[in-house]
Amino acid sequence: MLNPELPGLLLPLLLLLLLLPARCPARGARFDPTWESLDARQLPAWFDQAKFGIFIHWGVFSVPSFGSEWFWWYWQKEKIQKFVDFMKNNYPPDFKYEDFGPLFTAKFFNADQWADIFQASGAKYVVLTSKHHEGFTLWGSAHSWNWNAADEGPKRDVVQELEGAVRNRTDLRFGLYYSLFEWFHPLFLDDQSSSFQKRQFPVSKMLPELYELVNKYRPEVLWSDGDGGAPDGYWNSTGFLAWLYNKSPVRDTVVTNDRWGAGTICKHGGYYTCSDRYNPGHLLPHKWENCMTIDKYSWGYRRNAAICDYLTIEELVKQLVETVSCGGNLLMNIGPTQDGTISPIFEERLRQMGTWLKVNGEAIYETSTWRSQNDTVTPDVWYTCKPKEKSVYAMFLKWPTSGQLFLGQPKAILGSTEVKLLGHGQPLKWTSLEKNGIVVALPHLPSHQMPCRWGWALALTNVI
Amino acid sequence: MLNPELPGLLLPLLLLLLLLPARCPARGARFDPTWESLDARQLPAWFDQAKFGIFIHWGVFSVPSFGSEWFWWYWQKEKIQKFVDFMKNNYPPDFKYEDFGPLFTAKFFNADQWADIFQASGAKYVVLTSKHHEGFTLWGSAHSWNWNAADEGPKRDVVQELEGAVRNRTDLRFGLYYSLFEWFHPLFLDDQSSSFQKRQFPVSKMLPELYELVNKYRPEVLWSDGDGGAPDGYWNSTGFLAWLYNKSPVRDTVVTNDRWGAGTICKHGGYYTCSDRYNPGHLLPHKWENCMTIDKYSWGYRRNAAICDYLTIEELVKQLVETVSCGGNLLMNIGPTQDGTISPIFEERLRQMGTWLKVNGEAIYETSTWRSQNDTVTPDVWYTCKPKEKSVYAMFLKWPTSGQLFLGQPKAILGSTEVKLLGHGQPLKWTSLEKNGIVVALPHLPSHQMPCRWGWALALTNVI
Amino acid sequence: MLNPELPGLLLPLLLLLLLLPARCPARGARFDPTWESLDARQLPAWFDQAKFGIFIHWGVFSVPSFGSEWFWWYWQKEKIQKFVDFMKNNYPPDFKYEDFGPLFTAKFFNADQWADIFQASGAKYVVLTSKHHEGFTLWGSAHSWNWNAADEGPKRDVVQELEGAVRNRTDLRFGLYYSLFEWFHPLFLDDQSSSFQKRQFPVSKMLPELYELVNKYRPEVLWSDGDGGAPDGYWNSTGFLAWLYNKSPVRDTVVTNDRWGAGTICKHGGYYTCSDRYNPGHLLPHKWENCMTIDKYSWGYRRNAAICDYLTIEELVKQLVETVSCGGNLLMNIGPTQDGTISPIFEERLRQMGTWLKVNGEAIYETSTWRSQNDTVTPDVWYTCKPKEKSVYAMFLKWPTSGQLFLGQPKAILGSTEVKLLGHGQPLKWTSLEKNGIVVALPHLPSHQMPCRWGWALALTNVI
Amino acid sequence: MLNPELPGLLLPLLLLLLLLPARCPARGARFDPTWESLDARQLPAWFDQAKFGIFIHWGVFSVPSFGSEWFWWYWQKEKIQKFVDFMKNNYPPDFKYEDFGPLFTAKFFNADQWADIFQASGAKYVVLTSKHHEGFTLWGSAHSWNWNAADEGPKRDVVQELEGAVRNRTDLRFGLYYSLFEWFHPLFLDDQSSSFQKRQFPVSKMLPELYELVNKYRPEVLWSDGDGGAPDGYWNSTGFLAWLYNKSPVRDTVVTNDRWGAGTICKHGGYYTCSDRYNPGHLLPHKWENCMTIDKYSWGYRRNAAICDYLTIEELVKQLVETVSCGGNLLMNIGPTQDGTISPIFEERLRQMGTWLKVNGEAIYETSTWRSQNDTVTPDVWYTCKPKEKSVYAMFLKWPTSGQLFLGQPKAILGSTEVKLLGHGQPLKWTSLEKNGIVVALPHLPSHQMPCRWGWALALTNVI
Repeated sequence: MLNPELPGLLLPLLLLLLLLPARCPARGARFDPTWESLDARQLPAWFDQAKFGIFIHWGVFSVPSFGSEWFWWYWQKEKIQKFVDFMKNNYPPDFKYEDFGPLFTAKFFNADQWADIFQASGAKYVVLTSKHHEGFTLWGSAHSWNWNAADEGPKRDVVQELEGAVRNRTDLRFGLYYSLFEWFHPLFLDDQSSSFQKRQFPVSKMLPELYELVNKYRPEVLWSDGDGGAPDGYWNSTGFLAWLYNKSPVRDTVVTNDRWGAGTICKHGGYYTCSDRYNPGHLLPHKWENCMTIDKYSWGYRRNAAICDYLTIEELVKQLVETVSCGGNLLMNIGPTQDGTISPIFEERLRQMGTWLKVNGEAIYETSTWRSQNDTVTPDVWYTCKPKEKSVYAMFLKWPTSGQLFLGQPKAILGSTEVKLLGHGQPLKWTSLEKNGIVVALPHLPSHQMPCRWGWALALTNVI
Repeated sequence: MLNPELPGLLLPLLLLLLLLPARCPARGARFDPTWESLDARQLPAWFDQAKFGIFIHWGVFSVPSFGSEWFWWYWQKEKIQKFVDFMKNNYPPDFKYEDFGPLFTAKFFNADQWADIFQASGAKYVVLTSKHHEGFTLWGSAHSWNWNAADEGPKRDVVQELEGAVRNRTDLRFGLYYSLFEWFHPLFLDDQSSSFQKRQFPVSKMLPELYELVNKYRPEVLWSDGDGGAPDGYWNSTGFLAWLYNKSPVRDTVVTNDRWGAGTICKHGGYYTCSDRYNPGHLLPHKWENCMTIDKYSWGYRRNAAICDYLTIEELVKQLVETVSCGGNLLMNIGPTQDGTISPIFEERLRQMGTWLKVNGEAIYETSTWRSQNDTVTPDVWYTCKPKEKSVYAMFLKWPTSGQLFLGQPKAILGSTEVKLLGHGQPLKWTSLEKNGIVVALPHLPSHQMPCRWGWALALTNVI
Repeated sequence: MLNPELPGLLLPLLLLLLLLPARCPARGARFDPTWESLDARQLPAWFDQAKFGIFIHWGVFSVPSFGSEWFWWYWQKEKIQKFVDFMKNNYPPDFKYEDFGPLFTAKFFNADQWADIFQASGAKYVVLTSKHHEGFTLWGSAHSWNWNAADEGPKRDVVQELEGAVRNRTDLRFGLYYSLFEWFHPLFLDDQSSSFQKRQFPVSKMLPELYELVNKYRPEVLWSDGDGGAPDGYWNSTGFLAWLYNKSPVRDTVVTNDRWGAGTICKHGGYYTCSDRYNPGHLLPHKWENCMTIDKYSWGYRRNAAICDYLTIEELVKQLVETVSCGGNLLMNIGPTQDGTISPIFEERLRQMGTWLKVNGEAIYETSTWRSQNDTVTPDVWYTCKPKEKSVYAMFLKWPTSGQLFLGQPKAILGSTEVKLLGHGQPLKWTSLEKNGIVVALPHLPSHQMPCRWGWALALTNVI
Repeated sequence: MLNPELPGLLLPLLLLLLLLPARCPARGARFDPTWESLDARQLPAWFDQAKFGIFIHWGVFSVPSFGSEWFWWYWQKEKIQKFVDFMKNNYPPDFKYEDFGPLFTAKFFNADQWADIFQASGAKYVVLTSKHHEGFTLWGSAHSWNWNAADEGPKRDVVQELEGAVRNRTDLRFGLYYSLFEWFHPLFLDDQSSSFQKRQFPVSKMLPELYELVNKYRPEVLWSDGDGGAPDGYWNSTGFLAWLYNKSPVRDTVVTNDRWGAGTICKHGGYYTCSDRYNPGHLLPHKWENCMTIDKYSWGYRRNAAICDYLTIEELVKQLVETVSCGGNLLMNIGPTQDGTISPIFEERLRQMGTWLKVNGEAIYETSTWRSQNDTVTPDVWYTCKPKEKSVYAMFLKWPTSGQLFLGQPKAILGSTEVKLLGHGQPLKWTSLEKNGIVVALPHLPSHQMPCRWGWALALTNVI
């Protein structure tokens, strides 16, 4: 049935059109709404220098806090037995996912405390799920009435509070994750059943929200996700990105990722994420990010996770070292509780990272990849460098039994090369190997005097 | 900040425009989107014949069930002490109106039972609040995700269930109330603060819903309400009504009212409602409706109403008699409980009306107004007539002590005029008064043989 | 396993024993703890004069408010499908009856309002379920910690509030219902499985509560119920009653009933109740009470009751008339809601009773039974009398079509007998029938001048 | 008002008395109900050998999970602002502590998982709060109807499940904590206001429960607590203990503590606890236990605890080492969540203890105190010994920078004394100091080869 409102709607739009700039880039607008143009944009430098960020998955899924943040989907759409049983055993028969909304109280949420923990972790940016596939927005979106954190549950603008705390108390950049599609939004489902010929959902929901989000909270990372199988044309991603890069209040510093429609991942947009927990182990020609989770099995908090479900600090340090050596950033995820707390185990891991980075940050932040990413002789040795400082960093994850570290990659220069253990400071003795490589005599340090646990870094200056 | 999506949005709309019929009425389209044209439409005949309908106010306000269906507004906007205190004394501090949604269970809602009661009441149509000012839709509106009865609370399509039951089990017409504005919808509020220059709310919410509602449930009464201070141009009421009258599936039988924008009430649209509980006591040149409530103080159910808050059956019969005699329809309101029941006191009143109408319906249904509406000699006597049958009905609300009813208005014709008491059947003796009027000798009936209580009707045939 | 505490416990008890009066009745103690002695007590006169009381069933069962106040039993013990399904369809799988406790809010409970309605009903006493078989006490019993209205749900001492209101605002006597057994009390169940050889439950729960109840709230009706199949010896009913009649603060005015242990009903105690809704239709040699319900199917409130489930006022008046004529008292039950309101339909019935009694109370209160209970000639005529005033009352439930009431029982005395219609006042004409009986010419009254509906009473003075 | 039930109650008791053994110890009953006799009992040997146990504080207080397990007291009795505010800000005004009961779901409680974690921790016994001062029993106590875990909340017999799992899956002894008094039990409060002249509470509540608890679950640690200011005579503690030691099913193996009435602590009963977190730092003449918490501020779980609120594993190891060296046992407390999970941070600490004990358990379990408890030369060195094996263990908490550990206490015997590092195994070089003491050359071990972190133990054989 045709909506006779359309003519009425068209008139003001037509008038508006006359007032609009022509479709060619406006004066000062450097980017066209095409991938060709947008992909050519240079990533703002801060992002590659930051290396380490924190990802936060928080939402209504933090209430059941069971299985995964995909709870709704697994329960209602895939009808996975474990989820179906959980609901059957614990809730009334007609309980719906929406009924979790009021239970998402965030009673103890204190953005300042969160910010302080993030600062202590050594991270340089943080990315919050402003809206996950469930559609619940953590800010008071006018386009998601009664399904957002300001109207329901916390009854607070969570995005605003965190943004304020992060910007006032820390030197971290503030970023936002945003899911394009929503699993069960009736307008999206209707568009979908038209094979995305209809575009009710992006026009009335997703695009207005995205503009609002950027204008209001000025995220410097915009972490798009969830194309729902729809092409970027459906989402008008290029149109939005052109605005983001040309006109938005964060046009100069914002970075974004590659999840902007079916087929764009690892191909278009800003930096590449390629897949969850992407960690290729070798250099890539394009800036990338390894987004991964401390809880091996979930991005959202799981109330019943056991300690063995969490990565150890050793494993996390290894992820960081590998990722950075191969040119990536590490985006390490935590899932706060429905109460708004960061559970002690997450806080412990975050602070341990901070402890490690306080000693070894020199080998991580603002480094470049070196000609070799890891060592060919000794396993679990990874390299970064700072060309200006003529420094190469060799990070090693196991302290050699012999007390001597064989490095196959660097070539030393007699009389010039100097080797130090970060956090120790004294020049170490080393000898060149015949062809390439050097052998470094590590200091004999009792347990309590080790500069750190879980991994160490040698700074080699003047090596080739 | 200008939304660069607009150009992208405009293109398809422009294409669409080319495919649209020109703005002059399409072939067969009898009505233009102007008041001049729309007001000229003749009201479908069934409505004036029906005389008596039931209004149902049901929604999330039935959960607090306190004070009034305007609970939200009084509590949050006007901050009336009684409402503020009620919430403070009974709910957690951060409890919001939206949190009542999941509590609206409608556990015992049985549309068939409702329909049977409506049938028994003698009403000829029923009007359900498909959406009140709170914005909660009683059907699964795609434009009110997570704030509708299919997603939250009942988790059932209440409109659909009632429509089915009414149409399958009764001879009542099915009607829907719909509030144009919503007190707290963020898009409406934003439009409002632009002095309604912006039209986000009608375009993305109200108009799509109204089309959906009509197309899906084919209401034969569309009871619009709540202009929120905005003119009909903002709501595009004439555009919608033109479609409703020209093209909608109910174009031939639908009736609507006069609440279509600031200034339209008692002036434009279908029949007039003028104000709540409108009962002018004299003839009007335009068909009108007296919508009123059994509970004197509220349209929505109030848990703590006392019996003295309810109109007695005598008072209700009086309302009906007065209203019909003056050319109006009576729309008598009940408020079901959050459980989905019609409380026994409402059911009693409805069935009492049915009992009364079973005897006296002849003087109500399908009648016309007479030359006099009420009697000048005896108070509380009201007239209707059926010209074809040459019948005049004199309804009297008090049985005269003397056993004789003096009627000042009708002029009898000796040898022709006949007078009967409805439900009694025997011709009664009468004598003419000197100038006008007749005196009717009512039958001496013991209490148990009275055809009804609460009011009686004389059928006078062949009077002038 | 023997509890070694016993010797320690016995010592103080032994000392106490020495201080106790011997087991023969103490000075002034008129009653022995034997049925022979107790049954001989004369019922305080007020009770027979009162004729009409109100029964109130209120408790946690008012929360599910479904089926019956026996909800817990039907659901958990008898597993009746309708109850099992109700819980399965509406509550989480592990929801227990106890979880209804916190939901029993009594939000709108206002004892003063209740008292005013009771006063208006014409009742002369009121009996509240201080504890039903569920064991939840409506007062803050120290022996029912966390399962009483002061600790949970209302968080108010309901018994105390109602007692105060009834005594301060009305002339009604205040009475309490108390269930001896509790369906699921673990100590009772343990006693039961010992065939009541163990007496843990009466010793540590029921007896202490009953003493507390009487001492604290001084009920003038003690309506015992629920022997749970245990003999009165188990309950030590005679011991308790001896105390109640000899020593308690209400020893002079208290009345009690006949439900004091298996086999006592209709046989021992105070007045007889014999069975629920007991209405024998003839005279009994012992004072009795017809306890019955306005809702035909339940003592507790049922949210989903329809109007046809409630007795009409005509049926209620008939119950009263029949009961009083046969020497009984009527105890008419209402079930308040979990919110603490008396629903309008109950209030309407109560006030209608009051309206009727205001006119006809003379034929009810303080009357005696007459030599005939009902008439042999005209059905539905029932008699009471006041010997001192030489008055006989003939209550008739149908107004005779002929306007003449034939009474077969009374013999008139020419020149002496006078007949009046209560609420009318004028002496009526009558004629004697040949043998017995008189024919009374009822006044010709229009509907609005009838002194009442639903039943009438003739006062006949000086008849034989 | 005298309860006339008493004589009726006395008769069966008197009969019972005749059947009872005389008050002198029965044949085979070794203990009189006097402190003199009871204190002379030898502590079953297993307890001193065990050294390390786990304390579990779980109950309704785990639901608010805020501040402390004394939540109820602080909120309602002391009205501490922080607690009052917490309730005011998060719950309805009439919310009572009892309303937390149904929310204590224990949804994920899996006794087998708990047992496995306890086993992995190296603990040799576990003590669960079967009832804390709130009175909520974790088993289905017949004397705590509707205020116990079987009736409300978990709706499971938590004590039984844990007992089964611990006994079936581990070699730990199963123990139970039981609070004598209950803060708000009305019978206790009534007794209290009689200055404990009345004894309703112990007679009808505490003693029956304690017998039931021991008979049903056979705890081998009975951890009494909470005398509520009442003397042991009020509690009849000696009577109960005599039964426990003479007749109970655990008479041979049970150990108990010293909290059996005002004035008994650190003076009477089994082992001494003296005060919470008792850690005297020197030898005591009586076996004692240091009960302490991983969360520095609370025994019950606190949802909003931060990582800095938890003791580090280094601090916990230190507690264990100090406590055992001074002759105590360590009872380390965890607080499970309302969901029934042991949070990962607690699990991590427990497993870390297990890791440490796997290497160093030889220096802990089944050891005796040595002639010196700690070293006079090197701080943070603590001694235990095994006389039979002629071994002395020197546990040191800091690895010396020099690689040499100076021990001032042991006197070595040339040619006989041998020194090994636990977990390393090779005999170490040592030299005698002039007067007393030896200097041990610790092995040069790289970080990854250290047998453990957080503390080490040297086994010295054949020292004096």
